[in-house]
Amino acid sequence: MQRTLGTCYYPEHWPADIWASDARRMAEAGLTWVRIGEFAWSRIEPTPGNLNWDWLDQAIEVLGQAGLKVVLGTPTATPPKWLLDKHPDMLAVDDQGRPRKFGSRRHYCFSHGGYLAECRRIVGLLAKRYGQNPHVAAWQTDNEYGCHDTTLSYSGAARQGFRHWLRHQFSGSGQNDGIEALNAAWGNVFWSMDYASFDDIDLPNLTVTEPNPSHALAFRRYASDQVVAFNRAQVEIIRAHSKAPISHNYMGRITDFDHFKVGADLEIATWDSYPLGFLEDRVGASAEVQRKYANQGHPDFQAFHHDLYRAVGRGRWWVMEQQPGPVNWAPYNPSPLPGMVRLWSWEAFAHGAEAVCYFRWRQAPFAQEQMHAGMLRPDSADAPAIIEARQVAGELKQAPEVQPVQARVALMFDYDADWAWAVQPQGAGLSYFGLVFDHYRALRRLGLSVDILPPDSRDFSGYDLVLAPGMMHMPQDLKQALADCGAEVLIGPRTAARDANMAIPVPLPPAFPGLDVTVSRVETLRPDLPVALKSGGVITGYLEELEGSAEVVLQTEAGAAMAMRTGPVTYMGGWGDDAALDGLIGDLCARAGIATQALPEGVRIRDTATERFWFNYNAEPVTCEAGPLPAAGVLRVALPL
Amino acid sequence: MQRTLGTCYYPEHWPADIWASDARRMAEAGLTWVRIGEFAWSRIEPTPGNLNWDWLDQAIEVLGQAGLKVVLGTPTATPPKWLLDKHPDMLAVDDQGRPRKFGSRRHYCFSHGGYLAECRRIVGLLAKRYGQNPHVAAWQTDNEYGCHDTTLSYSGAARQGFRHWLRHQFSGSGQNDGIEALNAAWGNVFWSMDYASFDDIDLPNLTVTEPNPSHALAFRRYASDQVVAFNRAQVEIIRAHSKAPISHNYMGRITDFDHFKVGADLEIATWDSYPLGFLEDRVGASAEVQRKYANQGHPDFQAFHHDLYRAVGRGRWWVMEQQPGPVNWAPYNPSPLPGMVRLWSWEAFAHGAEAVCYFRWRQAPFAQEQMHAGMLRPDSADAPAIIEARQVAGELKQAPEVQPVQARVALMFDYDADWAWAVQPQGAGLSYFGLVFDHYRALRRLGLSVDILPPDSRDFSGYDLVLAPGMMHMPQDLKQALADCGAEVLIGPRTAARDANMAIPVPLPPAFPGLDVTVSRVETLRPDLPVALKSGGVITGYLEELEGSAEVVLQTEAGAAMAMRTGPVTYMGGWGDDAALDGLIGDLCARAGIATQALPEGVRIRDTATERFWFNYNAEPVTCEAGPLPAAGVLRVALPL
Amino acid sequence: MQRTLGTCYYPEHWPADIWASDARRMAEAGLTWVRIGEFAWSRIEPTPGNLNWDWLDQAIEVLGQAGLKVVLGTPTATPPKWLLDKHPDMLAVDDQGRPRKFGSRRHYCFSHGGYLAECRRIVGLLAKRYGQNPHVAAWQTDNEYGCHDTTLSYSGAARQGFRHWLRHQFSGSGQNDGIEALNAAWGNVFWSMDYASFDDIDLPNLTVTEPNPSHALAFRRYASDQVVAFNRAQVEIIRAHSKAPISHNYMGRITDFDHFKVGADLEIATWDSYPLGFLEDRVGASAEVQRKYANQGHPDFQAFHHDLYRAVGRGRWWVMEQQPGPVNWAPYNPSPLPGMVRLWSWEAFAHGAEAVCYFRWRQAPFAQEQMHAGMLRPDSADAPAIIEARQVAGELKQAPEVQPVQARVALMFDYDADWAWAVQPQGAGLSYFGLVFDHYRALRRLGLSVDILPPDSRDFSGYDLVLAPGMMHMPQDLKQALADCGAEVLIGPRTAARDANMAIPVPLPPAFPGLDVTVSRVETLRPDLPVALKSGGVITGYLEELEGSAEVVLQTEAGAAMAMRTGPVTYMGGWGDDAALDGLIGDLCARAGIATQALPEGVRIRDTATERFWFNYNAEPVTCEAGPLPAAGVLRVALPL
Repeated sequence: MQRTLGTCYYPEHWPADIWASDARRMAEAGLTWVRIGEFAWSRIEPTPGNLNWDWLDQAIEVLGQAGLKVVLGTPTATPPKWLLDKHPDMLAVDDQGRPRKFGSRRHYCFSHGGYLAECRRIVGLLAKRYGQNPHVAAWQTDNEYGCHDTTLSYSGAARQGFRHWLRHQFSGSGQNDGIEALNAAWGNVFWSMDYASFDDIDLPNLTVTEPNPSHALAFRRYASDQVVAFNRAQVEIIRAHSKAPISHNYMGRITDFDHFKVGADLEIATWDSYPLGFLEDRVGASAEVQRKYANQGHPDFQAFHHDLYRAVGRGRWWVMEQQPGPVNWAPYNPSPLPGMVRLWSWEAFAHGAEAVCYFRWRQAPFAQEQMHAGMLRPDSADAPAIIEARQVAGELKQAPEVQPVQARVALMFDYDADWAWAVQPQGAGLSYFGLVFDHYRALRRLGLSVDILPPDSRDFSGYDLVLAPGMMHMPQDLKQALADCGAEVLIGPRTAARDANMAIPVPLPPAFPGLDVTVSRVETLRPDLPVALKSGGVITGYLEELEGSAEVVLQTEAGAAMAMRTGPVTYMGGWGDDAALDGLIGDLCARAGIATQALPEGVRIRDTATERFWFNYNAEPVTCEAGPLPAAGVLRVALPL
Repeated sequence: MQRTLGTCYYPEHWPADIWASDARRMAEAGLTWVRIGEFAWSRIEPTPGNLNWDWLDQAIEVLGQAGLKVVLGTPTATPPKWLLDKHPDMLAVDDQGRPRKFGSRRHYCFSHGGYLAECRRIVGLLAKRYGQNPHVAAWQTDNEYGCHDTTLSYSGAARQGFRHWLRHQFSGSGQNDGIEALNAAWGNVFWSMDYASFDDIDLPNLTVTEPNPSHALAFRRYASDQVVAFNRAQVEIIRAHSKAPISHNYMGRITDFDHFKVGADLEIATWDSYPLGFLEDRVGASAEVQRKYANQGHPDFQAFHHDLYRAVGRGRWWVMEQQPGPVNWAPYNPSPLPGMVRLWSWEAFAHGAEAVCYFRWRQAPFAQEQMHAGMLRPDSADAPAIIEARQVAGELKQAPEVQPVQARVALMFDYDADWAWAVQPQGAGLSYFGLVFDHYRALRRLGLSVDILPPDSRDFSGYDLVLAPGMMHMPQDLKQALADCGAEVLIGPRTAARDANMAIPVPLPPAFPGLDVTVSRVETLRPDLPVALKSGGVITGYLEELEGSAEVVLQTEAGAAMAMRTGPVTYMGGWGDDAALDGLIGDLCARAGIATQALPEGVRIRDTATERFWFNYNAEPVTCEAGPLPAAGVLRVALPL
Repeated sequence: MQRTLGTCYYPEHWPADIWASDARRMAEAGLTWVRIGEFAWSRIEPTPGNLNWDWLDQAIEVLGQAGLKVVLGTPTATPPKWLLDKHPDMLAVDDQGRPRKFGSRRHYCFSHGGYLAECRRIVGLLAKRYGQNPHVAAWQTDNEYGCHDTTLSYSGAARQGFRHWLRHQFSGSGQNDGIEALNAAWGNVFWSMDYASFDDIDLPNLTVTEPNPSHALAFRRYASDQVVAFNRAQVEIIRAHSKAPISHNYMGRITDFDHFKVGADLEIATWDSYPLGFLEDRVGASAEVQRKYANQGHPDFQAFHHDLYRAVGRGRWWVMEQQPGPVNWAPYNPSPLPGMVRLWSWEAFAHGAEAVCYFRWRQAPFAQEQMHAGMLRPDSADAPAIIEARQVAGELKQAPEVQPVQARVALMFDYDADWAWAVQPQGAGLSYFGLVFDHYRALRRLGLSVDILPPDSRDFSGYDLVLAPGMMHMPQDLKQALADCGAEVLIGPRTAARDANMAIPVPLPPAFPGLDVTVSRVETLRPDLPVALKSGGVITGYLEELEGSAEVVLQTEAGAAMAMRTGPVTYMGGWGDDAALDGLIGDLCARAGIATQALPEGVRIRDTATERFWFNYNAEPVTCEAGPLPAAGVLRVALPL
């Protein structure tokens, strides 16, 4: 498959008389795609019912005539002011009970029926008008669901919706109308929290002390389901009018809704890769790492999301917004090292991206993102990004094919588990995302390519090693599938620690088929009190006491079992640091017959079916097995067949 | 008196058919007491007026038949949902003006008359039904007043109540209806804050800058009085139906209401001892101390509370909830070192506890405290705590008598002073509790046993040294009683610094009988700018300039008087660090003829009438005067008669 | 002109029978001025319409008879409770939407018309009664506008006022009613934020993510204008009844409203100098500097404000509240070093203050400021401040004349730029005030006296060096005036970076006449990643990429242009640290023919027309060019004519 480039463009921001030259320059730079429309509701429908399609018709025509393919976004992330006036209660409400006002974007509550109807209407009009347009080659629903903490809303609509959702969840229980089943499943007897009716149940914010974790987790599941339903409503309408593939554009490091479930309704997953913004704001790396990679981004963070969205898109995925220069939203907003825009682009392709689009074409001189770089400066001069994009375009022309291949290592990622950890971290700073990412980093340090798998995976054929750390609730059939799959399997800590409603199961966790290991006690540790392992490395943060007859394969210096194994299944009872995970995972790879190599700091590789890509995230040149790697450099080496 | 053990049990959490075996296992473990009922309102009265006593009748019977004595709690800490529906405005309101919602516990405002009436009703029903039950050997009102910051509520009911309370406070003043007396006492002229009527007065939250400290302190006093009244209402009802002693179960490090005043209405004071949770969350120790004692708890924090609640209970006190393993609520939740559950238990007895009850019997697999360890695991297997409890039970059987005795050193503790410091710390991080605890720690380091005294103490006979640091308002008769008591007396800093309404008195503080010392100026210091003393140690945080003709007994290196003395009364003008307090208090002990010894780090002693108990809070063995002390070990040595 | 001393007095706080002795002691201490009345509304008008002038008549008479001149304050900073009852919606509302309650001070919203009418009424009554009083020699409007974050209010009145103000701003645009001009100027198309009417526009708080910076900046300008209008209303009334000069008393480090615009309506600017409180709370200095100067204050912070308020008062300015000892409001409140009250007083005079008044006469034993020192203790004994004040009074008697002179260096200060930076810092911790103050500090380290100029300055005659760093919007006529003025001119970083509505101008900044420099890219840096300069020093925080044909005068070690110059105009593209600014500004002074000297750490000088004043902020003696300077010492040396 040929890999392509693109950009994000806002014709409504610029005089119509420069659209043609913009389009020409895009094409000349080697771009294929141009995404438009996703924030343009106020220009499409300036007043209620008064549709103004002319400019959009013209913009699509101009872009199409220049040879570009259009990705058309539905404008539902930015409802206009008049819509708020019509539905004043459509605003999301924050966890402190404050409505989140008009004046930026994403100012809506996913639970609000009135707003959903408005979205159906506008998407219907859009899809009908452009569904057969030859230049519209793909669709995008809304934009960046969940960004700015917008998945969880504590509005009246959400309260009503949550009650309804719970009633539905528990209706099949046979106990009166289900409320007793809910009381039992949540353990509401605990503090006299029993409900007589689903209408008794409020949202779990502003409670005197923490709410019941079952309550909190249920609300997170409900909130995620609203995103899925909101998206599906748009997809159904677009599909009725168009054969072009439909995508949503996800934001990195957002886990408040289940991307797999949203993705199941779509053909393509796209995501927004802002390596420098993420490193300052979301990776959670040490200050040392932040300093070292301040102008490059974290060496594993983009790759992790590439692999995640390849799974979300079931193979079809893009980078829809690639950072082109300094952004405006992180605590500090440095410039990328020369070469990094190219490196990031190639890394996406190496992980299987169909397209990489730079955000945005021209830096806007006004409004919230005026300090966000583009491919062009506000004065239309070339910015550094377009120069590196042209280089990538040229390289793509020479060697367009990148053929993805299944990896030998699979890492499961379960949004539900992330919510469960968020509801109950038990130790400050502990998160599921952090735990999974630590495992991913260890795999990458060992030179491995990784597939990320959704939690509903049951067929693990082709994998020699499967990791499922921290997956709080693990259904019985998944346990069985893992036990039977033939691969080496690593679970724990906290895998299978809760039942479907967040209660501790009895028999105690993990209750894994064929593995006599029981977590008899759990403790969390101060960051400055790690527990040393005999074999090197330490446990930090989270530590379980294990008992059972399985073989002990890792021990603390004091002799406590820390990892235990029977056959191919290994249970790890603590959160290992880098050294501990290197040892544990290296050992599992050896058992699985997977060759590993310790890569130089900041160097990463990714294998496709025919090639090995080398990436140097360092600000200095490095010599690797494949030869000299310049700073911010990329090597593309054919694999022996 | 024989010391006993017990546990906290929630029959409503478990199937009735395991109650009997639970009861048997409790008895076999050597437990005497079982506390039940304190969160069970929704099961006692599932719908308004529909009382369901059967299960509770049965539970008490089963437990009693097993030989256990029941402590029966009133369920008022967890009003059921239907009660909230009846009284939607009964929720407490936080200082930001947000109602604190249903969904956890303690969701009520102490000022709400409607809720108080409901409490009287349910307590009346409970007391009537079980007042003569032979197995109900003690009562507990509510649970952990003030926990989760629930003493201060900024509700409409609180506003009305506060106005009424103020009117009452100032009604005897003779100036019209008293509002002029209030204006004068508070100095409301200061910023045109004069009130024309008590109905003008609002609660002191959300003011533009800080409220008048007199206003803020009055509100804290009002709030404390509401807790006292709320508790008294229950006590009066129970007492009308039962001869069993009545207790309340206090939470450690809660100072928002006056425990002495609540305790005055009760026979027994009980408190909740969570040494590891406290060390992470509430002691305020340095990171170094937190690391050193992460699995043991702070060596003085439990002892301080033991001595405090011995005073609150006028000699009769228990530990009602003893930490049995990791808890769920601190930033980090480690496991106790083996032996610590036993050590904590014996330390309580050495300080005079009648009973130590472990919280809780079996770890709940559901709801907010599912990560809180119990004596049993969720699967009913023995957890480590029950094994240590059995050991203590065996040791108690061999030597049951522990005979408390009055100490030679008394330390005054005044909740009102804690509020005054909280209202006006004058330097970041300064608190009355911290100051008193620093003095307590110094006494303990010197190997002393200490009695804590309430602020209404006037008879100091039997004491050779009395300390009253930081007691902001000191009534004239207390000053006189201290001046006349014959013991060495240590006051300051900030002792007697305010009048009854939080104004600076003229003549200036401390205006202590027979002591010519005047605090002429006060400053607070950056933590990184301590002031060195000639005799060693430093002053940190709080420093007064002293003048007068009294003898200077401590000086700064620059020659300023820091402590001054006439006869037996010493005034200390700064907050000394450990070295400074060791010197000052060691000197006072020498003057008082009290023998001291410098204990090894982490080792503490406590004397009873006949024995000296040695406790090793270290994770390593130590050799002390009494012989080798194992890690987490206890020695019990007969004193020479 | 003769320099004078004074104090702030609250006769309403004290029994009338001590007023005369207070007045006598003031006069004996050498004081000339006594400010009264500014918080006394509740005593002037205890109930609505019931005026009680007697006490104030008497107080003015007593003070005047003692030979003191009265500064009479309007009492509008502290409206009484009954006024709030009349206008419950007059409270300011914070950015979280919470009304800011009665109970301290400044509890009003500048936008509230009803309150403004009440202020006109009381000021009219006051001015009429005392406008011709021979003892009332000056007036003060309100007190400390903006203190306690009171400029920005998110009330309903503010929302209405803001809409009205915007309508007025954009009404002359010719596009329908102006709303389209606003949409275009703000770039509201960006996220479909277009408004159909000015009544659509809300205040820019509680938006989902950040509001449009144009929106946010407009609101700040509106809020500032309300302060100006509020003040002007009082001035107009006073002026109708009195010939005495009118002042407002500003608080240090408050930039939320435009002091120049308020000052334009007044004869005198006064400010409140709390060197120790500021150092702990507002300077933003490193912990090392905070330690070194904890008892002296920052060596440049007072001087900066002196120079600023000399500009605000167009030459006539006072210190109305001089810190006399420990205060009550900083995180830590230490005592000044002996001598500092005298040093601070003389430093004010050296910078041209007409008067220095100590706050306050006697420490109040009650209410919010009971821990704020005075010239007298609460028991009326001398506090240390009065002793130093007497010394200054004696010195003034010997050498009363201090003759200000125009400096050779001018530094522009633009409140509007401070708001623009606050709206869009782009890097955490970056502020306009900080940038300007860093330049001021560099000038002071070089031994220079500085004039601060308002942004509407166009005549720079007499100056040899003019600095205008960070002035985000620079009108074209100012650019031209600077380009033509003949002085060396330093601009950047971020000078002229935005148009009048906060958009990036095209051609790109700075677009300065005669200077071919373009800021092609902007990045912000982690504090731990400074960029080194070839000539020494580093860039921290903010860094621009420059291009153009101008001469490069500063380069990074990597060779990037960091400062560029054509003729007398130098553009600096980054935020230099002390070493970088010393080099850059030292070089500019050399070019301008201004002699500089590197002063010893903590020593500062200020030149008048005839003298050089030396100030030693160190706690140790220093030897300087002019001879030995004791700790906290002042030298006054005649300049050669």
